[in-house]
Amino acid sequence: MPLIIRTTRGVYAIAPTPFFPDGALDLDSMRRLVDFYEDAGVDGLTLLGQMGEAPKLTQAEAVEIVATVVSRTTLPVVVGVSAPGFGSMKALTSEVMALGAAGVMVGPPNTLRTDDQIVGYYTEVAKTLGADVPIVVQDYPLTFSVVMSVPVLTRIAGDVPSVVMLKHEDWPGLEKISALRAAEAAGEMPRLSILCGNGGLFLDFEMKRGADGAMTGYCFPELLVDMVRLTAEGHDDQAHDLFDAHLPLIRYEQQPGSGLAVRKYIMMRRGLLSTDAQRRPGRSLSPTECAEVDLLLTRLKRREGVRGR
Amino acid sequence: MPLIIRTTRGVYAIAPTPFFPDGALDLDSMRRLVDFYEDAGVDGLTLLGQMGEAPKLTQAEAVEIVATVVSRTTLPVVVGVSAPGFGSMKALTSEVMALGAAGVMVGPPNTLRTDDQIVGYYTEVAKTLGADVPIVVQDYPLTFSVVMSVPVLTRIAGDVPSVVMLKHEDWPGLEKISALRAAEAAGEMPRLSILCGNGGLFLDFEMKRGADGAMTGYCFPELLVDMVRLTAEGHDDQAHDLFDAHLPLIRYEQQPGSGLAVRKYIMMRRGLLSTDAQRRPGRSLSPTECAEVDLLLTRLKRREGVRGR
Amino acid sequence: MPLIIRTTRGVYAIAPTPFFPDGALDLDSMRRLVDFYEDAGVDGLTLLGQMGEAPKLTQAEAVEIVATVVSRTTLPVVVGVSAPGFGSMKALTSEVMALGAAGVMVGPPNTLRTDDQIVGYYTEVAKTLGADVPIVVQDYPLTFSVVMSVPVLTRIAGDVPSVVMLKHEDWPGLEKISALRAAEAAGEMPRLSILCGNGGLFLDFEMKRGADGAMTGYCFPELLVDMVRLTAEGHDDQAHDLFDAHLPLIRYEQQPGSGLAVRKYIMMRRGLLSTDAQRRPGRSLSPTECAEVDLLLTRLKRREGVRGR
Amino acid sequence: MPLIIRTTRGVYAIAPTPFFPDGALDLDSMRRLVDFYEDAGVDGLTLLGQMGEAPKLTQAEAVEIVATVVSRTTLPVVVGVSAPGFGSMKALTSEVMALGAAGVMVGPPNTLRTDDQIVGYYTEVAKTLGADVPIVVQDYPLTFSVVMSVPVLTRIAGDVPSVVMLKHEDWPGLEKISALRAAEAAGEMPRLSILCGNGGLFLDFEMKRGADGAMTGYCFPELLVDMVRLTAEGHDDQAHDLFDAHLPLIRYEQQPGSGLAVRKYIMMRRGLLSTDAQRRPGRSLSPTECAEVDLLLTRLKRREGVRGR
Repeated sequence: MPLIIRTTRGVYAIAPTPFFPDGALDLDSMRRLVDFYEDAGVDGLTLLGQMGEAPKLTQAEAVEIVATVVSRTTLPVVVGVSAPGFGSMKALTSEVMALGAAGVMVGPPNTLRTDDQIVGYYTEVAKTLGADVPIVVQDYPLTFSVVMSVPVLTRIAGDVPSVVMLKHEDWPGLEKISALRAAEAAGEMPRLSILCGNGGLFLDFEMKRGADGAMTGYCFPELLVDMVRLTAEGHDDQAHDLFDAHLPLIRYEQQPGSGLAVRKYIMMRRGLLSTDAQRRPGRSLSPTECAEVDLLLTRLKRREGVRGR
Repeated sequence: MPLIIRTTRGVYAIAPTPFFPDGALDLDSMRRLVDFYEDAGVDGLTLLGQMGEAPKLTQAEAVEIVATVVSRTTLPVVVGVSAPGFGSMKALTSEVMALGAAGVMVGPPNTLRTDDQIVGYYTEVAKTLGADVPIVVQDYPLTFSVVMSVPVLTRIAGDVPSVVMLKHEDWPGLEKISALRAAEAAGEMPRLSILCGNGGLFLDFEMKRGADGAMTGYCFPELLVDMVRLTAEGHDDQAHDLFDAHLPLIRYEQQPGSGLAVRKYIMMRRGLLSTDAQRRPGRSLSPTECAEVDLLLTRLKRREGVRGR
Repeated sequence: MPLIIRTTRGVYAIAPTPFFPDGALDLDSMRRLVDFYEDAGVDGLTLLGQMGEAPKLTQAEAVEIVATVVSRTTLPVVVGVSAPGFGSMKALTSEVMALGAAGVMVGPPNTLRTDDQIVGYYTEVAKTLGADVPIVVQDYPLTFSVVMSVPVLTRIAGDVPSVVMLKHEDWPGLEKISALRAAEAAGEMPRLSILCGNGGLFLDFEMKRGADGAMTGYCFPELLVDMVRLTAEGHDDQAHDLFDAHLPLIRYEQQPGSGLAVRKYIMMRRGLLSTDAQRRPGRSLSPTECAEVDLLLTRLKRREGVRGR
Repeated sequence: MPLIIRTTRGVYAIAPTPFFPDGALDLDSMRRLVDFYEDAGVDGLTLLGQMGEAPKLTQAEAVEIVATVVSRTTLPVVVGVSAPGFGSMKALTSEVMALGAAGVMVGPPNTLRTDDQIVGYYTEVAKTLGADVPIVVQDYPLTFSVVMSVPVLTRIAGDVPSVVMLKHEDWPGLEKISALRAAEAAGEMPRLSILCGNGGLFLDFEMKRGADGAMTGYCFPELLVDMVRLTAEGHDDQAHDLFDAHLPLIRYEQQPGSGLAVRKYIMMRRGLLSTDAQRRPGRSLSPTECAEVDLLLTRLKRREGVRGR
């Protein structure tokens, strides 16, 4: 399968990991999800990210998920391999790359503080995983408590050739995209593909700032695809209208701690997951939360009108 | 002036502190703001919060701001007095309560970890400030890194009689409001007034969950007032429509780190502040950010229609 | 092999994981270490702790280490199984318990904040690992940023029957030992075995406070054994004299970040490890650090006299 | 009075702030302390540091302390002015410099993460306080959670002319002293005076690494003075012997959270403070802790012999 590169563009949907209520993997739902993402027009998939409940899986299960997905689709598949140590990171990476993954995503351990520590970490990661494994740097201070400044990202992009993509979810982050693109234009760093996360909460402006697309798990990936397309075509007003219709739900789903439960609930309602179960320890929506989400879905449908989602 | 109590309701607008470009206090703008908030129909004001650039002020300046406001309005005024130590907290509290403040707001130092430490802190605060000073507990983990569980808040509400209000901005926080109201209904804690912050990002559901109102600084306080009124009147659909029109801007303004610059820029555009200057160290909006905000304002005006905001 | 229980006493030496310079496991040194610890008179061993470079190992390697050790000794062996998720924690635990481990040690993820979160975490751990697996709770705020108050430990001891031991390395922690023993005496919690870590930095007082022994990796485990024995026999003065002789080195070895390099260097000098290599990423001592350690060893030898260590 | 400069050497004793049991300032004890420090042969004093309970003071009280001390001694006096905002930092600095302080000490707010943020912070501090106010940078990650790498300190030393001294208490920190001196020798940074803190826990090696002295509050400042002198004279063995005699107590006093109580208790026992009271919220030693300290003092006296301390 093709690898991700520094000019990769489009929407990489972050897939949840489906479970049965008893905690067993639900691979049928996984395959259904893959088909759904393909139909929605995404450009790639990302597995085992923060929202993929990766830490609850054994390595064997993680590999099973990846094998199931890559055998179902020709879309490029990025796999989250963040781990507290290089032993298991290397082992998982070797397995999934052998299966045909397009690259791996690595978030920083939350003990990193100084610029040198962060650059040093990704240098070590690249050395450990091997020069031929494309790496996505996940820049998500809200979750990781690691702040990557523009100079740090400039250094990583320049010093670590196998880092080809930034999963951008700093917050606030619009100026950061502009600053990175300016640094690139000034010849201070090689190009990185920038795909934006944060549940899509700022996607109405991120593309204009220079992002290449989105890598996030919003339960309506069609919206992400449409946003990227409409912006590329210059239909800005239409893009904003569409985005604003989804924003109440995007905002609700983006809450740290409960977002995954919202996402799985909606995907179950949409017939994609057989249940909304998370593997223990997890949480499900309260009745009141379900009612709130239902209301948001009703209002979304009304606003989107004939599109009938 | 009246003090805040456990049944206080409505909208407490958090006012920014106006500065001239050279860093001097701009008290004329402060007075203009007060008049504006009164006209908007708010029920009270909050000064010197996180968004009030309080740490950049000397105590004398802080007192000057409070004196200016309380002499301009009969609205109850809550004053943020968070400080790393009890010396300056006590000194500022004494001065502002003597001036006629309605209560003080205290956020936790970010070194607190255990339940006992948090309860102990507010117990000490109350003892230091005196039993007659009403206290607002600020529950804002995103900024303070202090997580107050429902049992902790239950204990504080029961153990510390002068704590009468919770500024609720945990995230996610809807379930927390419900849990607190359930604990109150079960007789496990005395009532607290709950006013919600977070820039208003979840105000469409917070009132329904049992909040008493909002305490936040969104640049259109009229929206906050309308939301509280519409919800109280049972006009839920209208409330959601109004909220959704504002959400793209609310979301943009709520970004930590740049939110205050957005707020001051819009308040300057609305003719309320003479400049959008922050005292050093601060930031102002980039030209691209200004254009993004302008676009959001244009779209808001179009959606709100004849209300002409 | 016997399991650890709530009355376990003595010295559990934390063993480093020996590597060759190329990063391969050095199992011959591992066996030599085991024999050395037995000769030194320790009561048990702890593998794959913070100082065991556990995160750098694959699960297969971790199991290989444990298998090597349990087949070499009849001493009870505790295994560190801390992991960001329950998937790999459960998998490793099952393997090492099947090999004959005496229990497992679990440190808290550094995202835990509230009392309920901490108690809930260990409740989930116990449920995941199974009721028959004895658990050591590692209370090490300096490294984990998780503060476990006495009420939290009281709750864990009472609510989670399979938690039988506390690895105590809070700092300062002497009062905590007394408080836990007082809670036990008052019937507020069942007994926990308390073994102290922190490199032994406070072992001269910890036994008197009620600790059952030490679980740490100081490069002279003979000192730990002697301290426990001398204190039990009431030879307090002799215990303090011996301790004070070692304290300059204990203090030097206890530095976070460089302590393991000191430990491995001395164990190499003592002929126990074939090299002082750490698996990447690691560090070795600078020439100046080596000279400082050599000086401390010379001074220790002079003070300890005929014991000739 | 003379200002601190980049070549300042010797011992700056960090003085506690004496209180009466009711929380009032005990200025008589303060004067007695000053005389004692002078007799002990220190080269300067530091007031209102972490161990000076500064946050519990009002600004007026802080100024009163400084005025009391500078009118009692001709020793240079450094004043801690760390504050969450520049308003009160500037106000206090102006007052104490006018009284004759030799410089101010500023620790970083614990929200700083990236290299640029740290350098930017001290750049702003210097701009705010004025070019003629000498600044001590406090590098104490254990307390502040801010990690200053050698490149960051190199940048600050080069970019901010009024930063003349580093209070070094990173941990581990010996290699850092060597690295800073190497950077200075290589012309990469101007010289900084480096005085070491950490309660003196590594003072036996810090001078050899290139430190200029100590700035810490160990309750026997005579030891600090002797260590600096003996090392300067090349009496290394004697220095180590003296240091090792004190180490059990140094270690006990260095515990974060209880160290100040130990220090005040011993200074009360030595007749320097009229009480060991801390202003609320504080703690005093338990009877067991008192007994432990008494034992350490007895053992110290025995080992130091005729010096009779």
